[in-house]
Amino acid sequence: MSSDTNLPTAAVLVIGNEILSGRTQDVNVNAIAKKLGTIGIPVKEVRIVPDIESEIVAALNALRARYTYIFTTGGIGPTHDDITVDAVAAAFGVKAIEHPQARALLAQYYGAEELTAARLRMARAPEGADLIANPVSAAPGIKLANVYVMAGVPHIMQSMLDSLTPSLRQGPKIYSRCVSASIAESAIAEALGDVAQRFPNIDIGSYPWINQGKLGTALVARGTDQEAVSKAADAITALVEAKGIEFTLSEG
Amino acid sequence: MSSDTNLPTAAVLVIGNEILSGRTQDVNVNAIAKKLGTIGIPVKEVRIVPDIESEIVAALNALRARYTYIFTTGGIGPTHDDITVDAVAAAFGVKAIEHPQARALLAQYYGAEELTAARLRMARAPEGADLIANPVSAAPGIKLANVYVMAGVPHIMQSMLDSLTPSLRQGPKIYSRCVSASIAESAIAEALGDVAQRFPNIDIGSYPWINQGKLGTALVARGTDQEAVSKAADAITALVEAKGIEFTLSEG
Repeated sequence: MSSDTNLPTAAVLVIGNEILSGRTQDVNVNAIAKKLGTIGIPVKEVRIVPDIESEIVAALNALRARYTYIFTTGGIGPTHDDITVDAVAAAFGVKAIEHPQARALLAQYYGAEELTAARLRMARAPEGADLIANPVSAAPGIKLANVYVMAGVPHIMQSMLDSLTPSLRQGPKIYSRCVSASIAESAIAEALGDVAQRFPNIDIGSYPWINQGKLGTALVARGTDQEAVSKAADAITALVEAKGIEFTLSEG
Repeated sequence: MSSDTNLPTAAVLVIGNEILSGRTQDVNVNAIAKKLGTIGIPVKEVRIVPDIESEIVAALNALRARYTYIFTTGGIGPTHDDITVDAVAAAFGVKAIEHPQARALLAQYYGAEELTAARLRMARAPEGADLIANPVSAAPGIKLANVYVMAGVPHIMQSMLDSLTPSLRQGPKIYSRCVSASIAESAIAEALGDVAQRFPNIDIGSYPWINQGKLGTALVARGTDQEAVSKAADAITALVEAKGIEFTLSEG
């Protein structure tokens, strides 16, 4: 796909020992990628790092210098292993402070008497940060420059993502067509390579699948030029039809 | 957890536009992390990059300088977008060649007549690489120095991982106990922080959950010192019991 430097891009930074240990299957990267895809902001890179401040800082600084938007997940709860706020502050060279608006949100949610020191940890933010609404459980996410700090619990992350996406600069819509055919990837690889060469601005992907003992390949054309995506999908369809192979055509 | 530089570590490099676009939910990172965890090799970092050679090279060189073992997934099939072999060769500054043993495996699997140019792409390897057995579909994975190049299709990746793990240098077994309690994370955060301070060599993690409208937290103690893990879990259990909260105790 052509790389126009004016087009918005994104990276995701997953913060969490539980993902790296295999205890938890991450689903946030997929949800973020899908959501941003619908508004033309492609995710270009993902990193998953442990709950270690220096690791978070290094990854965040590498990513925020390179992509339009960085989305972090995890590490903003009330416990000792929730160190994302401090790491983001350190990455930007600012202090972590108690954010008055975050404190007010938590006081309203828990009641002033139940606003313990642990819960007040969730009111902390890097100096200069704005808040991201959390319609589920009050403790807000944080936005600082191009970094969006979100919860790790999937449905809370999703609610924060929904809160913040209207404020993002959208890119051109990405169109996608998928030809799924009962054919081994290797049997169509050369012809598919020719199609890819004919459509240099379209990403042509090939993803083998097995379903109930049946073998096949999903052939996907993606790009911002709707007409070219359509034509590339037509060319792929023609390849498959010429071989007399069963196929289905769908979006995405 | 204490960091002994003699202990083996791992990183995973996922190569695939389909993961970044959200089309495919990655499950390989979790499978690799779990498998390596059972033999004492903790995954310390994960990166997901697109099918772009320079991106793969940069990520691979960063990771292989830092961790004992690097596992890549994706991009070793027969199609034009399968560029992992070239990228690994470029990262090591060697040529990609046709590996005689890989060619022989493919010839046996497909038959000499069906060994097309596309299928022969899967016989390519960086010069000096060894092969990783693929019991599912013949096309082998590749090992070069500390880099293990595996397929992206999950059950093929799993078969390669099973093939190669006996050759890895195992680390000390990681023990894990989980106290899952019907309590909000923020209601136990401070006491949990105290436990974490008392067991500096044990990772104490706190992971909120919601199940059928019920709220709770999984409190996990992990480490290589079995006795300390046990004692940390006991301390956590005591906290929960003191509050008269329902809980379950399990491994992992």
